[in-house]
Amino acid sequence: MSTAFWWQQAFRQADEQAAAAARQRQTQLTKPAGSLGQLEQLAITLAGLQGRERPSIGQPWIAIFAGDHGVVEEGVSAFPQAVTGQMLHNFVNGGAAISVLARQLDALLDVVDLGTAVPLPPLPGVRHLQVGAGTRNFAREPAMSQAQCLQALEAGRDSVRRARAAGAELFIGGEMGIGNTTAAAALACALLGQPADALVGPGTGLDSAGVAHKAQVIERALVLHAAQLNDPLQVLRHLGGFEIAALAGAYLACAEQGLPALVDGFICTVAALCTVRLNPACRDWLLFAHCGAEPGHRLVLDALQAEPLLQLGLRLGEGSGAALAVPLLRLACALHNEMATFAEAAVSDRPV
Amino acid sequence: MSTAFWWQQAFRQADEQAAAAARQRQTQLTKPAGSLGQLEQLAITLAGLQGRERPSIGQPWIAIFAGDHGVVEEGVSAFPQAVTGQMLHNFVNGGAAISVLARQLDALLDVVDLGTAVPLPPLPGVRHLQVGAGTRNFAREPAMSQAQCLQALEAGRDSVRRARAAGAELFIGGEMGIGNTTAAAALACALLGQPADALVGPGTGLDSAGVAHKAQVIERALVLHAAQLNDPLQVLRHLGGFEIAALAGAYLACAEQGLPALVDGFICTVAALCTVRLNPACRDWLLFAHCGAEPGHRLVLDALQAEPLLQLGLRLGEGSGAALAVPLLRLACALHNEMATFAEAAVSDRPV
Repeated sequence: MSTAFWWQQAFRQADEQAAAAARQRQTQLTKPAGSLGQLEQLAITLAGLQGRERPSIGQPWIAIFAGDHGVVEEGVSAFPQAVTGQMLHNFVNGGAAISVLARQLDALLDVVDLGTAVPLPPLPGVRHLQVGAGTRNFAREPAMSQAQCLQALEAGRDSVRRARAAGAELFIGGEMGIGNTTAAAALACALLGQPADALVGPGTGLDSAGVAHKAQVIERALVLHAAQLNDPLQVLRHLGGFEIAALAGAYLACAEQGLPALVDGFICTVAALCTVRLNPACRDWLLFAHCGAEPGHRLVLDALQAEPLLQLGLRLGEGSGAALAVPLLRLACALHNEMATFAEAAVSDRPV
Repeated sequence: MSTAFWWQQAFRQADEQAAAAARQRQTQLTKPAGSLGQLEQLAITLAGLQGRERPSIGQPWIAIFAGDHGVVEEGVSAFPQAVTGQMLHNFVNGGAAISVLARQLDALLDVVDLGTAVPLPPLPGVRHLQVGAGTRNFAREPAMSQAQCLQALEAGRDSVRRARAAGAELFIGGEMGIGNTTAAAALACALLGQPADALVGPGTGLDSAGVAHKAQVIERALVLHAAQLNDPLQVLRHLGGFEIAALAGAYLACAEQGLPALVDGFICTVAALCTVRLNPACRDWLLFAHCGAEPGHRLVLDALQAEPLLQLGLRLGEGSGAALAVPLLRLACALHNEMATFAEAAVSDRPV
């Protein structure tokens, strides 16, 4: 492809000097070396991404991208498709899990409707972009047109721009879309060269027959679109969803604009995989919050060499797992910034 | 033994009605059933322990019990013994990891010195109990007299009484004591009938030769005291430490007084194992924060059928891992209490 897309650029890099200063500071704090486990590297990584020896996580930005999926007509979800729109109400009315978490964390919530199967009347607090009336059924045809896919990617980028303008110090992407574990599993199969069995799971609550059927639908789609699956953008267009493309666009924009992103569950992690295939340099800007219950999640995390912070058996989406990990980021920063050094506290370090 | 000790009583039980009401509420919240993973049962458990359908974690109480260990003369620690006392300064001066975490969590910090090898001059903010100048070297003789062991258990109980009086809603025990992974591993060996190899680890930073030596010291002690190791109190007295006995006493008192306890790392989990052997009914009052880096920790957790919340490779102690899990408890409560039900939000539940 000769056209250069906006994400085909040299993105920002972490500040190695700040990371080195933070690494040095960690060795001087009054604790056995390494005894804070993953939280030590987390603080060092955040120092590099924020370009300062002492990082902090002020206000997080939580963007929820919602969209419907044509593939639900194949019977791949336990919930009716109307739930996507109903949950948009719930997000802005404060009753959804992510609404509760955003309040608790003092986070800003940005709710973006990319296109439900039945277009919704305008909802206060929701941005309705109407990329389409849901995607097409990817078991029969490409999920999106090229224009729709680019529009959804740009929608994610726009949310990151708003996050930066609001002074947010962390980007969390969440998703809502009945059927989107099917799209995510199909994307991961195509990008990782794995069979559907390796990546498919119960989603919101399929039984084993439902899971087997879902795998068959994905296998059929992988055969149908096989000729188009050598390019990550085409993988995303043929098998993805509006909200998944928006997430991928947002993660790309985080690298573009220098904002650390905390990646949520299975669907977000698959979007992160798309991102890294579109531009590998984005990987540095991605932190991984948790490994969820969907069986394919670990495989995708491993492909990204990700070490998630939590493993609580979550499978809700909405960005909820990432939100639950925010206190760990904040406490990792507080420990890094506020602990006394051996010299300050007159504590003996171990003999060299 | 004919004397009934204070912990040999019928302790408080969780409120099954409150737990059942909370369980019912979980099924009505706007999320797929089970999608919040461990956090759902956590909220239900807390509801039962607090006796109300909607639990909450206000101010946590963090008690740090410190004591020295005679067994360090066998060369089982990477740090000099003076660090125990130095860290007591650091706790009350605000520079230790747990000091930082307590500030961040708005927790009350209760620092109890049960006895350092060289007695300390009085430190403002520290309770000096002087149970002894550290324990005796359990590789050669019993670590404690019966009177010392009972005094240390009572010291833990006293801290829980102070926690209740202060209105704390969660008890966290932490420990500081150079050499205490050796004592904890020895206790776990005796209580679980395992060889030292299965439970010994690097502690604050031994190399592999150091770990092998530590295991030999423990094996020697297990042989020396074999005739005394059929009774959990005698196990604690012969192989334990002042701070470990205080932790065990505190967990017993949590069950006595109806205060949920959040158990920290390897040493605290071994203390919890002692507690449950002293009175099995205490188990219900114990929540487990994390599985740390010390290799024996998982084994002890499994013996307690514990499912910890975090696994971050921590090995600091001080109650730090439990403190790091407090936000998860708070967020689990907030989700449970504040999410809308399907009926309230007019969201379709999945078809039955």
